Amino acid sequence: MDDLVADLQMLIRQPSVSAKNEGIEECAKLVQKLLKKSGAKSEILRLRKGVAPIVYGEIKSKQNPEKTLMFYNHYDVQPAEPFDLWDDPPFSGVKKGNKIFGRGASDDKGELITRIKAVEAYLKTTGDVPCNIKFVIEGEEETGSEHIEDYLKKYKKKFSCDGVIWEFGYVDAKNRPIVGLGMKGLLFVELSVQESVRDAHSSLAVLIKNPAWRLIEAINTLRNSDGKILIKDWYKEVSSLSKNDLGIIQKEPFDENVFKKEFGIKSFVGNKKGLEAKKALVGDATCNIAGFVSGYTGDGAKTVLPGNALVKIDFRLIPKMDPKKQVSRLKKHLKSKGFSDIRIKVFHGEAAARTKSSHPFVSQVKAAADKSFGKSILNVSNAGTGPMHPFVEILKAPCISIGSTYMFSRIHSPNEFARIDLLKKTTKCMCMIMDNFGKN
Amino acid sequence: MDDLVADLQMLIRQPSVSAKNEGIEECAKLVQKLLKKSGAKSEILRLRKGVAPIVYGEIKSKQNPEKTLMFYNHYDVQPAEPFDLWDDPPFSGVKKGNKIFGRGASDDKGELITRIKAVEAYLKTTGDVPCNIKFVIEGEEETGSEHIEDYLKKYKKKFSCDGVIWEFGYVDAKNRPIVGLGMKGLLFVELSVQESVRDAHSSLAVLIKNPAWRLIEAINTLRNSDGKILIKDWYKEVSSLSKNDLGIIQKEPFDENVFKKEFGIKSFVGNKKGLEAKKALVGDATCNIAGFVSGYTGDGAKTVLPGNALVKIDFRLIPKMDPKKQVSRLKKHLKSKGFSDIRIKVFHGEAAARTKSSHPFVSQVKAAADKSFGKSILNVSNAGTGPMHPFVEILKAPCISIGSTYMFSRIHSPNEFARIDLLKKTTKCMCMIMDNFGKN
Repeated sequence: MDDLVADLQMLIRQPSVSAKNEGIEECAKLVQKLLKKSGAKSEILRLRKGVAPIVYGEIKSKQNPEKTLMFYNHYDVQPAEPFDLWDDPPFSGVKKGNKIFGRGASDDKGELITRIKAVEAYLKTTGDVPCNIKFVIEGEEETGSEHIEDYLKKYKKKFSCDGVIWEFGYVDAKNRPIVGLGMKGLLFVELSVQESVRDAHSSLAVLIKNPAWRLIEAINTLRNSDGKILIKDWYKEVSSLSKNDLGIIQKEPFDENVFKKEFGIKSFVGNKKGLEAKKALVGDATCNIAGFVSGYTGDGAKTVLPGNALVKIDFRLIPKMDPKKQVSRLKKHLKSKGFSDIRIKVFHGEAAARTKSSHPFVSQVKAAADKSFGKSILNVSNAGTGPMHPFVEILKAPCISIGSTYMFSRIHSPNEFARIDLLKKTTKCMCMIMDNFGKN
Repeated sequence: MDDLVADLQMLIRQPSVSAKNEGIEECAKLVQKLLKKSGAKSEILRLRKGVAPIVYGEIKSKQNPEKTLMFYNHYDVQPAEPFDLWDDPPFSGVKKGNKIFGRGASDDKGELITRIKAVEAYLKTTGDVPCNIKFVIEGEEETGSEHIEDYLKKYKKKFSCDGVIWEFGYVDAKNRPIVGLGMKGLLFVELSVQESVRDAHSSLAVLIKNPAWRLIEAINTLRNSDGKILIKDWYKEVSSLSKNDLGIIQKEPFDENVFKKEFGIKSFVGNKKGLEAKKALVGDATCNIAGFVSGYTGDGAKTVLPGNALVKIDFRLIPKMDPKKQVSRLKKHLKSKGFSDIRIKVFHGEAAARTKSSHPFVSQVKAAADKSFGKSILNVSNAGTGPMHPFVEILKAPCISIGSTYMFSRIHSPNEFARIDLLKKTTKCMCMIMDNFGKN
């Protein structure tokens, strides 16, 4: 574990913010070094210039060369802003008791290190692995995995496998790991308006239109206060949750009070409670304002009429929502409501994906999780997004998420951390998954 | 004029951003130095610690010690942000042909220098001034002149006068100065919402409320898209424009096309045209978004659910709107619409003021303006705000704005400039005002 902690700290100390193209190449090289240290063959794969490379690793099994397990992870991290809310510098990787702090400590450098160390432990103690292992470690996950589909197509043969262990897995407040069978999709857009060619004195607001008002009027038509999206046909292709899925959701524990306390909130969107809240996590689409900026945002008063306004919106998509179709529905909506002056920039779209709970890979992973953590929980779909759809589509392999990310570990927020006890249990769990998978 | 230009450049090069308390004391000292250089007695007046000082100047007239003219100006400037839109550094004071660029070049350091140089010219050429002169130069105008009322009360005797020349005066696209008889009031507020105690991963938007959505829903009830304010009783005490006022407005030239071209816009708020547009500038109240910020506003995508959202709103007030009353109406409105969770911070409120067009001071100033510029235009009220109300109330003196500020000189915006030809004409105009005022 000392070695794991030290290597994780080293990884955190190498910033790798894909949104800003900060430290990406350096971090890829560091990951390759760690793969080689574990005993894997490793190479840096490239699509073309300007695209973050994939770090690829491979170990052929002597005892079982017929079955291949893939570990999919990412070495990039979210931006660390707002810096002033961090207790320690975001890339310090400081260890305090059972926790290691830093941007990426959990998401995804902590997860990645458990996979690498599991393989390393197997190779060092037995000289072999129970099945072939492939590492696919990308560098654009936090900006939406824009090129993973192209990579999967280009390296389809190299990446062929029989099962994929996803880049993360949540552990709940009672230390139970979630065995996740799906991910939501994502559509990230920027809407903007320009009225005047520049900022003006706000006294002119009697005549010059305010772009912030315009944008607010426009986006206020997108959803109601309960979170329902009001864009025409947004939910058209969506099926309601199956009986099987509902059964799994009903069994899932969810402590509303712990969750509310953690975020300091009193009620949920649309005043959801109990099963409704659990169903929302698995199956609700969202229209979330990730950022809004216009005019003067510093301290004090400035009587300015801004020239432009911009909002960043992320829509979480559920199965059967096609990102491209949803973009055209959004455009049609704004036009039909009289807002054809609103400019739309699409950052990326990604469809949702789910693996069927009846697949044998599910029980192999669940058994390993139960054994290493005590008890695990089955989950139909994570509330978050990952590029699971192209893996399922192109590699035709089942994908399951299981890992070490404590659900209140503040991923994407200041003071993100990883718990050392969970890193240890997850490393053990990864060994058992290889074992169960290789021998069945 | 060389001396005037050099002194103005020196003033611009001393930043004095009241919103950030940057360079205030230093600029006050510099202004005092310039007053002394002109031949005035000068002192720095203070209210208490933490309040920007007033630079006071005085010259007693030998030929006419019975009448006193006050020049009211300010030495503070607006913040220079966004810095990257300036062609030259905002505090460089660079001269290019007929223009001097920099934050404060027109508003208000350009205006101030014309008053000082007019007095200096009179004293140097005749050894006297045609009436007593008082300079009241404050340092908090751009943050709303929060303490000018207290200063006027404290120094009521020292400041007593028979007429006030206001801190600015616009010059239109055809080089005609505006003789302004009034100012609108201002109410600057910050509305904010906190939902979660911190930013969260945006996948949790299915359950955690988004403060940006909440704030948008709330403020979208404040006005309609034509700019009409929907807060109950907002216009209750307001009278419509008098026949006299309407007559003056009708005579006012206003070139819609030049205005629209300057700002790159095609139509006005509420599609106003002709007389309606002119009436709006004089007499419409506004609810303007001066700034809105929430979540991630940097480059690229970040899937974050913000913990809080904040909007800065400035309401322009028209005569008989009491700022305190309007604040309580705003609070009542939000409460009645179900938004009692929205926090309100009031930065300041200031009532509107107007001087009657029949006052003899008006014709004295207008005659001086006609003579020095060729032709001037009478204006019932400026669209902007200044603390004219306490001057009229406490000093019982008529206030008139006349000056050198070209109406497209980008005050409060990047690349603010002053035109040297107008600085020259205004200096001459100030001499003539002293003359007309002293001899009548």
